[in-house]
Amino acid sequence: MPNAWQKPFSRKEFLGPVALRAYAAEFSGMFFFLWVTIGVVCSGYSALQKSYKITSGADIYDANDYAPSVSWVLTVALAFGMSIMVLVYSVAHISGGHLNPAVTMAMIVFGEINIFRGLIYIVVQTLGATVGVTMVDALWPESTTNSLNFGLNGINSELSIAQAFFMEFFGTALVVFVIFGTAVDPRGSEFAHHNAPLAIGFAVFLAHIVLIPMTGCGINPARSFASAAVSGVWTDQWLYWVAPLLGGSFGAAFNYFPFQFRNNPDNKHGI
Amino acid sequence: MPNAWQKPFSRKEFLGPVALRAYAAEFSGMFFFLWVTIGVVCSGYSALQKSYKITSGADIYDANDYAPSVSWVLTVALAFGMSIMVLVYSVAHISGGHLNPAVTMAMIVFGEINIFRGLIYIVVQTLGATVGVTMVDALWPESTTNSLNFGLNGINSELSIAQAFFMEFFGTALVVFVIFGTAVDPRGSEFAHHNAPLAIGFAVFLAHIVLIPMTGCGINPARSFASAAVSGVWTDQWLYWVAPLLGGSFGAAFNYFPFQFRNNPDNKHGI
Amino acid sequence: MPNAWQKPFSRKEFLGPVALRAYAAEFSGMFFFLWVTIGVVCSGYSALQKSYKITSGADIYDANDYAPSVSWVLTVALAFGMSIMVLVYSVAHISGGHLNPAVTMAMIVFGEINIFRGLIYIVVQTLGATVGVTMVDALWPESTTNSLNFGLNGINSELSIAQAFFMEFFGTALVVFVIFGTAVDPRGSEFAHHNAPLAIGFAVFLAHIVLIPMTGCGINPARSFASAAVSGVWTDQWLYWVAPLLGGSFGAAFNYFPFQFRNNPDNKHGI
Amino acid sequence: MPNAWQKPFSRKEFLGPVALRAYAAEFSGMFFFLWVTIGVVCSGYSALQKSYKITSGADIYDANDYAPSVSWVLTVALAFGMSIMVLVYSVAHISGGHLNPAVTMAMIVFGEINIFRGLIYIVVQTLGATVGVTMVDALWPESTTNSLNFGLNGINSELSIAQAFFMEFFGTALVVFVIFGTAVDPRGSEFAHHNAPLAIGFAVFLAHIVLIPMTGCGINPARSFASAAVSGVWTDQWLYWVAPLLGGSFGAAFNYFPFQFRNNPDNKHGI
Repeated sequence: MPNAWQKPFSRKEFLGPVALRAYAAEFSGMFFFLWVTIGVVCSGYSALQKSYKITSGADIYDANDYAPSVSWVLTVALAFGMSIMVLVYSVAHISGGHLNPAVTMAMIVFGEINIFRGLIYIVVQTLGATVGVTMVDALWPESTTNSLNFGLNGINSELSIAQAFFMEFFGTALVVFVIFGTAVDPRGSEFAHHNAPLAIGFAVFLAHIVLIPMTGCGINPARSFASAAVSGVWTDQWLYWVAPLLGGSFGAAFNYFPFQFRNNPDNKHGI
Repeated sequence: MPNAWQKPFSRKEFLGPVALRAYAAEFSGMFFFLWVTIGVVCSGYSALQKSYKITSGADIYDANDYAPSVSWVLTVALAFGMSIMVLVYSVAHISGGHLNPAVTMAMIVFGEINIFRGLIYIVVQTLGATVGVTMVDALWPESTTNSLNFGLNGINSELSIAQAFFMEFFGTALVVFVIFGTAVDPRGSEFAHHNAPLAIGFAVFLAHIVLIPMTGCGINPARSFASAAVSGVWTDQWLYWVAPLLGGSFGAAFNYFPFQFRNNPDNKHGI
Repeated sequence: MPNAWQKPFSRKEFLGPVALRAYAAEFSGMFFFLWVTIGVVCSGYSALQKSYKITSGADIYDANDYAPSVSWVLTVALAFGMSIMVLVYSVAHISGGHLNPAVTMAMIVFGEINIFRGLIYIVVQTLGATVGVTMVDALWPESTTNSLNFGLNGINSELSIAQAFFMEFFGTALVVFVIFGTAVDPRGSEFAHHNAPLAIGFAVFLAHIVLIPMTGCGINPARSFASAAVSGVWTDQWLYWVAPLLGGSFGAAFNYFPFQFRNNPDNKHGI
Repeated sequence: MPNAWQKPFSRKEFLGPVALRAYAAEFSGMFFFLWVTIGVVCSGYSALQKSYKITSGADIYDANDYAPSVSWVLTVALAFGMSIMVLVYSVAHISGGHLNPAVTMAMIVFGEINIFRGLIYIVVQTLGATVGVTMVDALWPESTTNSLNFGLNGINSELSIAQAFFMEFFGTALVVFVIFGTAVDPRGSEFAHHNAPLAIGFAVFLAHIVLIPMTGCGINPARSFASAAVSGVWTDQWLYWVAPLLGGSFGAAFNYFPFQFRNNPDNKHGI
């Protein structure tokens, strides 16, 4: 079993100054993450409307007519992936740079973070994300934010709930598999010291180009919650929590058990 | 208070050979930055006209008809972000690679640079930027430069002035938050030693994909000034100075106070 | 001759715990690689249909009408390239991160891996890839997977078999040339220590933007096999094995003989 | 004056085994560079024709009707930039990874390479490039290669010769400025040790997004020569030699004199 599970309870680990700074880092990171990504969704929609109007003469204010063209998917996926890359570089030395409750959950399960500290991370991430989307609400024109419900996640009508569930599950598993391979594995982190945030950012990018046309791509419950909270639409919200939380821990296990557990000479868990 | 504010006045810090080379670096960097980015804006417009003419038979020389399609926004954002990345790699060891008065202002406020040297940076950056755009004026066909006013920043008609102001404010805050997290924080810079310019470049890219359809994306007063000076259009120029200068320092404070001030064992300011 | 060819037979090298973990890493890597890339092919097709329907009113369910637009090629190529980058960062320290039978074959030929271990790699890679595509079959709507045959490789009708063969040959040669220059060459790997996966990922990206409109881009027999196995279409399958296996070893030779063999003072093969 | 100019003549420096391997590296690098980039130009054209035919019913085989859409420019620019990145990572430790006569010329002028060795580099680069384009001729369908003249450079009809000349001049200057700032400057190379090829690759990308719609983007005489030699069209070929060769050395001077000459404590030229 991971060491952290055997350690005695320590208040300092989740209330000391180091922990408080970590909460601040997760909050700031999530604020900027949501502000920039949901902003890109709304700005891109505005650009799309404008160019569509010029070529066809018609408006496309109805969200159902909103065509997620391939270059749009690419742009939005780059926004999500590169903002994670950039923000993990910025706060990884303060909080570990989780910026995602599904990542924090996997870290709790595998003893990489104190469980109480981890739960506070999740609360703070959700709060930061919601403030970020609220700022988009305040700054962007209503025509764009109303039509898209602040980048609300939604399931493609051709999918069953089970299919959507496992898409979110494996998308999150991919991201956490990469995090455990590059940033958590002590040998991995040595090999990929400077570049873990780069690999993680592109893993998030990949999850988005594969999932945006299918589930809108959640893989991050705090991000899904924030869009739902500000738009007031809670359809399938449970799925965007359960699937990533389970999928993230599955991805971690998929990396931890074969590659780090027991066989690893540098195993920091000492088992 | 940062150390630099308490130090005695030293001429050498802003007139010695090291300082003079730094001014040259900021000038060259800004020259290439504006030449290549405003060049991309004008070249992309030319490509757009040509392909539009073939598919529709009509010309689109009127700038109001100029549709900022999603792939156009992506391309221009990559031009701005990757040129900052490339030029920061090239001159960071000479001048720190600010290449933006809003960055220099934040460095002055947090004592990372001598105030007189910083003010000369800002003058020199603005000069280099203007020479860069002047070179675009000399080399590009008039049809492209006239229509787009050399990439002049302008506020989307759906936005209030306050909304545009805070978009520029937070866009600059994001970039400077990343700079302070990766290049200024002594622990951050150790963690992200080789990759700070990569993270900073992608932060600039993010600011551009989110802001281009809304404010044209300034976040750099020298860049906004240069387009205005060469095109002779000064509408809302004040906003493209005040918002980035305040937003940059806000982003720095958002990183400095929680993560570097006092709590940092390696704090180089010794307070 | 490479050292590995002269070594006595050792069971441990392909049956010990280190070898078993390496097989698991190649399996997991290939699973995620195919899941995400073939997923992107199917999701992108769905996005394309939707946006095409809105602008033209017509459906494009017939795969023959499926137009591989430039931004589609770019997106799919980024999916293939960046997933290799991300997964090589994640498993390189476990298995070497081959993730391609053509790479493993070149490693066998140049003595970088035990031949029995290498052959098991190839089997395991093919298995992981097939499970990945099977998961796409389970999760994606039939309209997308049926039309595209799970990203099945196919030869452009304007090409002769020989032309397609040498396209696959040189595309794989490029990727393996880069692998041998950055990750195998002992001096190269020192120079490019942290960045070999980045260079390799972009080499895969390049092979895809150049080959997708011509051969669909195989350059990886396990990936080609997986699409064929799940779709049941085996046309030209031999080509997608023979050309990459020969091309990969050619690319390795093109790097090994001039740059590493004999002339290299640090030559780890000691010849 | 740079040291290399004062050294006695040494045959070994351009005929010894180290030099011979360097020639082989420049040849291989240029072969792959041209094969993949001109291949992308031709493959992209094929994709464009196919998608245009589906939406409009008409063919666009006439090269004059070939619309360089924004996403096409982006894709081609990424092909050129990322292939330089990937190949510089692969051969920099063998030959320095010039892969461009304009770079080699700047290295000769600033004493970074023996003049005779440098001149052989230029011959070998041009040869490798021409073999690469010849291979595209052999493998790609005639419809694509004939229409585009193998990516032949050409001047936009709206430009004067002088404008085209200085566009090529400054585009090359930007690339060589970055090379001198990251890979040549002894302090720069320490700072940017692992990432110089990344910065250089993106500088090449930038030159291409800015110049493709204007001059087709040469900035590399060997690349321009190869397209001309295989297509047999030599219009304005002189410009694609003179402007890059002068511009490259200008970019080097723009970096060398202010930042490396005399003021540099680690100056390896000892002057």
